[in-house]
Parts: sequence; C-alpha cells; structure tokens
Amino acid sequence: MKYERKDLLGIEELSAEEINFILDTAVSFREILERPIKKVPTLRGKTIVNLFFEPSTRTRMSFELAAKRLNADVLNFSTSSSSILKGETLLDTARNILAMKVDCFVIRHSAPGTPHIIAKNLSIPVINAGDGAHEHPTQALLDLYTIRERKGRIKGLRIAIVGDISRSRVARSNIWGLSKLQAEVRLCAPPTLIPPRIEETGTQVFFSLEKAIKNVDIIMMLRIQKERDKGSLVPSNAEYREFFSLTEEKIKVAKDDVLIMHPGPVNRGIELPTALADGQRSIILDQVTNGVAIRMAILYLLLGGK
Amino acid sequence: MKYERKDLLGIEELSAEEINFILDTAVSFREILERPIKKVPTLRGKTIVNLFFEPSTRTRMSFELAAKRLNADVLNFSTSSSSILKGETLLDTARNILAMKVDCFVIRHSAPGTPHIIAKNLSIPVINAGDGAHEHPTQALLDLYTIRERKGRIKGLRIAIVGDISRSRVARSNIWGLSKLQAEVRLCAPPTLIPPRIEETGTQVFFSLEKAIKNVDIIMMLRIQKERDKGSLVPSNAEYREFFSLTEEKIKVAKDDVLIMHPGPVNRGIELPTALADGQRSIILDQVTNGVAIRMAILYLLLGGK
Amino acid sequence: MKYERKDLLGIEELSAEEINFILDTAVSFREILERPIKKVPTLRGKTIVNLFFEPSTRTRMSFELAAKRLNADVLNFSTSSSSILKGETLLDTARNILAMKVDCFVIRHSAPGTPHIIAKNLSIPVINAGDGAHEHPTQALLDLYTIRERKGRIKGLRIAIVGDISRSRVARSNIWGLSKLQAEVRLCAPPTLIPPRIEETGTQVFFSLEKAIKNVDIIMMLRIQKERDKGSLVPSNAEYREFFSLTEEKIKVAKDDVLIMHPGPVNRGIELPTALADGQRSIILDQVTNGVAIRMAILYLLLGGK
Repeated sequence: MKYERKDLLGIEELSAEEINFILDTAVSFREILERPIKKVPTLRGKTIVNLFFEPSTRTRMSFELAAKRLNADVLNFSTSSSSILKGETLLDTARNILAMKVDCFVIRHSAPGTPHIIAKNLSIPVINAGDGAHEHPTQALLDLYTIRERKGRIKGLRIAIVGDISRSRVARSNIWGLSKLQAEVRLCAPPTLIPPRIEETGTQVFFSLEKAIKNVDIIMMLRIQKERDKGSLVPSNAEYREFFSLTEEKIKVAKDDVLIMHPGPVNRGIELPTALADGQRSIILDQVTNGVAIRMAILYLLLGGK
Repeated sequence: MKYERKDLLGIEELSAEEINFILDTAVSFREILERPIKKVPTLRGKTIVNLFFEPSTRTRMSFELAAKRLNADVLNFSTSSSSILKGETLLDTARNILAMKVDCFVIRHSAPGTPHIIAKNLSIPVINAGDGAHEHPTQALLDLYTIRERKGRIKGLRIAIVGDISRSRVARSNIWGLSKLQAEVRLCAPPTLIPPRIEETGTQVFFSLEKAIKNVDIIMMLRIQKERDKGSLVPSNAEYREFFSLTEEKIKVAKDDVLIMHPGPVNRGIELPTALADGQRSIILDQVTNGVAIRMAILYLLLGGK
Repeated sequence: MKYERKDLLGIEELSAEEINFILDTAVSFREILERPIKKVPTLRGKTIVNLFFEPSTRTRMSFELAAKRLNADVLNFSTSSSSILKGETLLDTARNILAMKVDCFVIRHSAPGTPHIIAKNLSIPVINAGDGAHEHPTQALLDLYTIRERKGRIKGLRIAIVGDISRSRVARSNIWGLSKLQAEVRLCAPPTLIPPRIEETGTQVFFSLEKAIKNVDIIMMLRIQKERDKGSLVPSNAEYREFFSLTEEKIKVAKDDVLIMHPGPVNRGIELPTALADGQRSIILDQVTNGVAIRMAILYLLLGGK
C-alpha cells in the first residue's frame, strides 16, 4: 500500500485503506516525538509554505513543528502583510510562490474549496488545513489516531459529536472518517445547528444530549464558534450550556470508560466544565500531540515517501 | 573580476562589468534551484535580517528563501510589532540589531535613500529591497538575468517599459541597467506618469502604446499602483485600460518573438489580459524563479565570496 | 555550582552565587559571538517558543538569535493571529503548545506574574522576558555582565538608576541584582515616579539628578515610557528634560571614568542627548551584544547543561 494522491484535501475522497495507511505511518513519527532530539533529516532541502488566511495558533504551529522536525524549511505567509492587499488573485499568489521552487502548500481559508482550486492548478502537493465549514482532514486523522491509540480499534465504537455541527469542518471530516472506519456516529445539537439531510451520511441525529451519549465510547465536544456567529442560531450561551454542556452528572449514562475529545480551543464553562476538560477521561492534549505526528506523516507521504 | 562594494544599493552606481559579473554568478545558483535538495552550506552561521517597512510577499519571501538555501539564519522584522512604535529612530533600530552580531540587512522602505543612510552608518552589507520610487536593484538584476537567459544577450535589444514610470522604482532601476548593457529603452505612459527630464537618461518617450512597442523584443508592463495613488493622475482605470493595456491585437506590431515581462503582482484585466499574462510569450514566472537565484548570488557576493 | 532551578522568573529569588554562575557561563557564549560561524550544536532538536504578548523588537530578536545560535528551533507566537482571540485562557494556550512537545517558553506579558503562573503549571523551563512592571531578569543579567566586563567587578561600585523607577521592570530587576552583588544603588526620579517604601530595598532615593550622580561609577538611564502613560505623572517632557536629562555639563560631577547605560530604546533628546548616547562613555550597544550571550547561557543552563 502507498498513498498515491498528490494532495490531502479531504477525508471524503479517501478509502478506509488510505486512512489506515496514514494512521499506520504516523506511529513511527509519534515515537520520534518522545526522543530527546526530535528531528529526522527526511525532508532536508524541502520548503513548506504555510498559507493561512484565517487566524490560527495550534494548527499553524503544529504544521510548522512537523515540518521543522523533518528538517524542512518553513515559510509563513501572513495575509496582513501580503500582496493579496494589492488585489492579486489567490491563484496568482500561489503560482508566484511556487515559481520560487517551493515543495508544498498548507492552506487554510474561510472559503470552502480554496485548497482544491490551488491543488488542481499547481503541480506540488497541497494540504487542506481547514476550508470554511467544509473539511479539516488532518484534524480528523489526528482524532482517528487518538481514538485508535486509546481504544485499540475504531470499528464498532459508538461516538457522539456534540455541538455546532452545521458550521464545523471538524465534524464534517470526522463523520466521513469515522463512518469509513465503521464506527457508529451520533450527532447532537439544537436543530438550528444540524445541517439539512445529514442523516444521509448514515449518522443518527439527537436533539437531547442525554440520549445522544447513552452508552457511547467517545464524546467529541465541538466549540461554540462565537467568533463566526453572525445570526443567532442559539438563544444564548446560558441556554446552550443548560442543555448541551457536558457535566459530571450527565456523563454517567455513557460507558464507564468513555473518553472526552475536543478539537480546541475549549470554551471552559460553556461546552465543558473545567473538571471534565482537565479530568481523567479527557484526551484533549493527546489529540494535540498526535496532531504533530499525523502532520509529519502527511508531509512525509506527500513529499518524501516515494 | 570581483564585486568589491560593501552594499547593493542601486543599479545607477554599478558598471556594466559589475552587472555582468553578478549575472554570471547567479547562473550556478540558478542550477541549484533545480536540484532535489536546494541547499548549499555557503552562509552557514550567518544571520540575514529582513527589515521591511512596506507590505511585501514575493520580495520578502524571495530573500528569505535565498538566505535559507545558503543555510543562513533569517530574522524577519515586522514593523507593526516593533519598537519603531516606541519612537526609536530607524538608525538606532538598525544599530541595535547590528549589535546582536548579525551579518546583513535587507531593507525595504517607502522613503527613498533609507537603505543608503543605514549602509553609510553601519559596517555590514546592506541590500536595497526597494526604496520609495527610487531603486529596486535586485528586481532589475533578475529582469536582466531573465532577458539574457531567454534572448542570449541584452546589447542591441529593443525594450518597451509601459506603465506608471514616474512612481516605479522597478522602471528606474531597469532604465539604468538596460542602458548600461546597451539595450534601446523605450518608455510609454500617459504624460502624467512620465517623470520630467527622463529623456536625459537616453531613453525615448512614447505616449502611444502602438508606437512604443513597434518592433520591440521585450515589453515590460508595470502595475498601476492603485494602493499608492493619492491624486488622480489617470482619469480612470477604464481610460487607462483602453489606451495602455496590452492586447493580443496590439502586440502584433512587436517582433514575432516578443516576450512579456511584469514585476508583479499583475492586475489582471488592467495592464494585461489573462490570455497574455499566462500565454506563451509571458516570462513573468521565470522572473520570479530567477529572482531567488539573483538574491542568492548577491548574498553570496556580499557575505561569502571574499 | 550548578543552576538547579527549572525556570528563570526573576532576580529577586536568585542568590549572589547563582547570579555569578550565570555571568560566568555567559563568558564562553560571548566569545562565540566573535567567531565567523556563530553557531554551536548545543540545543539541536530542541524547540523554544517565544510567547510575546507585548510588542518587542530587541528582546524577541535577542532570544530568537540566542536560540538559533544554539541550533534550537524557534516558534514565534504572535498575539494578533492567535486563538487568544477566540477566548482561550493563556494557560490553555501554553498547555496546548506544550503538548506539541516543545522544550521552553520565553514569555513577555503586561500582567505581573504571568510567567510564574505558566511556570508553576507546566513541566518545562519558563523564562520571564518581562512581566508588567515586575521583573525583566535577562535584562538585569546582561546589565550586570556588562558592568563586570567593563569595570572588572560589581562589589563596591556606586550606580545611579535615573528615570521612571515606579513602572520599570528593568529598574526592579537591577535593584535586586546590584544589591545582591553588593553595589551601592541610588535611585533618582521625580517623587511621582518613585515607588513607595523603595528604601527598604537598601537603596538611596534622590530627587536631584546632580546629587544622585555625584561620584558614581555607572549611570543607568531609563526610558520615559510614553506608550504606557495613562495618567500624567510628569508635568511635561520639557519639564522632565530640564531636571532629569543627563547632559555633558551635569555628568562632570560623576567619576571621571563614569559609564552610561540604557536598556533601550533611547528617546534621544529626552533622557539622553545624542552626544552622550553615542559618546565614549556610552556602553549601550555593549549591553545589546551581551544580551545575546546572556540569553544563550540561560537557554543552555535551563535546557542543555544538565
């Protein structure tokens, strides 16, 4: 098995075999992160360009660290100081940077499909680091990796994703990934935050948190994305907290060994109380660590593993 | 022959021999860019500081890539997060950074002469990456390199520079460079965008695009710099486009093998229609690639080649 | 002797032995800065994260250079493009970055005690790069290093610190350091800029510049921090300059071999006239150079010297 694609644009188009192959590849990179010298020469002389058109700390840093640990050079492109301000098209910007002989683009953009347009037009690998509410494939891969690491398998697990499903690229990519690996996926949110016809993906929809998490193995809480909120899809934060926050009381209906995940950043006291965010069941920081390993694996497969 | 100067501040002061020596030096760096591992240890342990006081993507990235491919360390100085905000003079900022034992400054500033002031007062090499409407010497060098690469020579070629000549440091540096290497330089713009007494440089001025590009080997289109426009030197973009845009129809009067250049970023549909910007005659992306090689050569000559 | 602490948070808690040990360690790193290749492989494979929540040029660059010269990787965290904007707590941000397996945080924040909170909660070394008006320990260490280098000793020297004492973390850290190494410390400012009960530190307070600098070995001028000024503690800049600016006339009462220091950036013409800032007695740029060596020593002691 090899990963034969030029790019990583989404989980939707990947087969279960491809997903498993990426997860398997990440295992050895995860081990490197435990070494005193966390560096391998795999991508020496390659240049990775981070094109981030939305603010980001953890994803951008995670890619930057992954690249540096493979000995690649990293160029960070910052929107605010750029010629995008001068009216250049995004594709022209990418083509110009490519002409400087760089080797890979990592792209985050608020418009769904942006990385796909760049990927279609350029010869080098493109990694989608989040495109609007569409996909965030490396997040789903790190989530799958973390679940498999902690539970030993994914097939047959029962997983509830709770929160703003309709505007979450994390949810969308995870629904694809979990379904392909034959987990049972439950979605839970107020009706205004559930996208239409989502049941066609084979997931079950719940409007009650207590019912959604009954007997689940994993609860994946999403953040209420206050910064994107333009309309008012939720009556108030207090209302949301009352019905969709996880609490130590509510979680008792889940399995005894249930684990809590969150893509971060956590709104403490809104989606999750501090006791759960930092408690024994939380594997939120494992997700972050595994994210570096997954991104090392992706860069390796797209750039060096051929 | 050697490049004996401490700095690269402008094309005006260079001899034809010096220009040719830089172009010759760039040839071997251009080859490195085609290698799988685009890195040489030439400037290991040196630190290059990018001091950019104007927004820039391509020039800043090009210098950063050039430095990294020579194994130098790069510090990027961002105006917005700096002690310039605390009222420090520019020269004090530079002197303080120099005291940290760095090896070279690359400076872009809106005020003409800024790199010259820094260069005069500091012991290390200074590279002008664009000073107001004055000079942009590495752009002219990469343009000369690209012309020589594609046409085999520069002497005797007929070259039209079209656009906002009066506020273009690219035009100014190219007029010096092309004249020194004995090309025939034609300038073309509405009268309001032609600087006074420019004919004294030995160039010819045309107010008609059709006349300017008749029988030329190279057409160098400049961008209409909307972002600097404070007065109204051009009636409207539509007006400008009507008379000074290049079209497939108009270009027929040029030589059959005419090539189109542009320093970027291109305003598609204003200076150039997409068909010409992306067409067979366009060597715009070659310019970008060669820019990295030219900057590697300059850094090598100023820092390592002695 | 070893430096046994996990962090460097302030000078207050250090013993004279610890301070001297750091200064001794810096000597060999200072020598590296004079080499043509200013790089040693000491911290290869380690990652240093700069978390700067206040604008800074020289301190951030100094730490970045120090880290790169030890061959560490550096991640710069910029507040403006970060998930702090998304309402995440500072501690969560730090914990998440730590989960990516980084090795050290360098933190600047306007709130006193911020680096201490991070240090207490995380397992990796934390370096305080300035916390509000509290401490700036690497600045004091570089000042002590510079004094010792130029005067051969610190014990018994008479040092005047002049300026906005009450809001200066530089003054606070230097008072601790100089006192511990048995220098005689004099503070000089208008009464509104002297913190209450400061005499308890063993320093002497002067409201007259002429009296404060009489027979001193060192004059350390502080900057008037206009950018932090919310009230009006000084009647006017002109007023301040009249009474608290150093002049060539006033400095005659100091020792003949008096040296002038300033943490930068200098307000030329306010605290110091240009003739003194750039004159023979000024060791302001030595401070900057020694700052890189001190930060290399600190990173080495916290990360590599065990």
